[in-house]
Amino acid sequence: MTPTGKKRRGELIVLSGPSGVGKSTVIAELLSSRRDIYFSVSFTTRQPRTGEADGVNYNFVSRQEFQRMIADGELLEFAEFVGNYYGTSLKVIREQLERGIDVLLDIDVQGAAKVKERCAEAVTIFLIPPSLEELSRRLHSRNTDNEEVIEQRLQRAREECRESTHYDYLVVNETVVSAAGTILSILEAEQCRTPKRLYFIDGIVGGKNGQE
Amino acid sequence: MTPTGKKRRGELIVLSGPSGVGKSTVIAELLSSRRDIYFSVSFTTRQPRTGEADGVNYNFVSRQEFQRMIADGELLEFAEFVGNYYGTSLKVIREQLERGIDVLLDIDVQGAAKVKERCAEAVTIFLIPPSLEELSRRLHSRNTDNEEVIEQRLQRAREECRESTHYDYLVVNETVVSAAGTILSILEAEQCRTPKRLYFIDGIVGGKNGQE
Repeated sequence: MTPTGKKRRGELIVLSGPSGVGKSTVIAELLSSRRDIYFSVSFTTRQPRTGEADGVNYNFVSRQEFQRMIADGELLEFAEFVGNYYGTSLKVIREQLERGIDVLLDIDVQGAAKVKERCAEAVTIFLIPPSLEELSRRLHSRNTDNEEVIEQRLQRAREECRESTHYDYLVVNETVVSAAGTILSILEAEQCRTPKRLYFIDGIVGGKNGQE
Repeated sequence: MTPTGKKRRGELIVLSGPSGVGKSTVIAELLSSRRDIYFSVSFTTRQPRTGEADGVNYNFVSRQEFQRMIADGELLEFAEFVGNYYGTSLKVIREQLERGIDVLLDIDVQGAAKVKERCAEAVTIFLIPPSLEELSRRLHSRNTDNEEVIEQRLQRAREECRESTHYDYLVVNETVVSAAGTILSILEAEQCRTPKRLYFIDGIVGGKNGQE
């Protein structure tokens, strides 16, 4: 609570990064040190894979339900990949932000651009690898893709890094702890940006920015 | 050093705040945890007070020397109070920034506005008290001013708080450690702002933002 009794609005944080950069690990680290951050789970119409849980990896919904969400304007952004829908619920996010809770979105470059368009105050962060060589090493060490797939991922990473210039912040993922720490610093800094603190000045000087 | 071999430029941080807010203590805390920050000492033509050391509290110079600095465009900002000049050396600051060293300036609201005008990338931070009541308590506990002077300082604080809306960030000085920590977070975040990281993207994708 503030001097004027107003509660601060939560921050909407959008995190993107190329495949293999270590985004999931950074997110896990972030959420473990800031348990009050709400991690927005995407909605999808695709079938759950082995080990995936509803409400954890995705909210799994029917095609019919997803189309209803589109029609009712409930989605902040959505896209169709290989016949399946993927999207972010605006309704859920808005509720959290209004309660003063910070919300973290893990979405791709196109999704991030749509979010920024609809929600200019969103804080967009792109996680970059220290170098393409290091990204290649990380992709190889995962042991999940063959050489051809890795080459495709590296090519896509190069393209995404080019598009990353539209993000507010670029965070180099040298180590998981340092990258998560930097993102927490960005969050702390963003909360101190003057437009978000005007209510505080009002509380001190009285009235609308002191224009009594 | 970066992938392209370029060194990052230092950040110019401008810190202001009303009398009694605890700015000097916060600065001392900042400088003790980040010994690589260069604290810019102002130049003045006024006489040193007891306990003040040249090069520490101020750089004490003659009126003639100060006027030469003005004439030679060596000052980022300057002002005259009660017959004495006070100013900030642009030359010294520029040298530090180019070497990649962060520079901290402790100047008033008018000085900060002039710095921002000449140096748009400067990061301006205004330190605010948790409330005017708390500021009044802090001013009383210093035991240095009489009631009339304290009342004047509070009136001035109210005016400065109104002008603080021109700053990039407002940091509430609840405790010295938390305020210094927040300023360090702001510094870390600012260094990740995309325009300051484009060289990194160049290093990854090759050429000017990857437009090979």
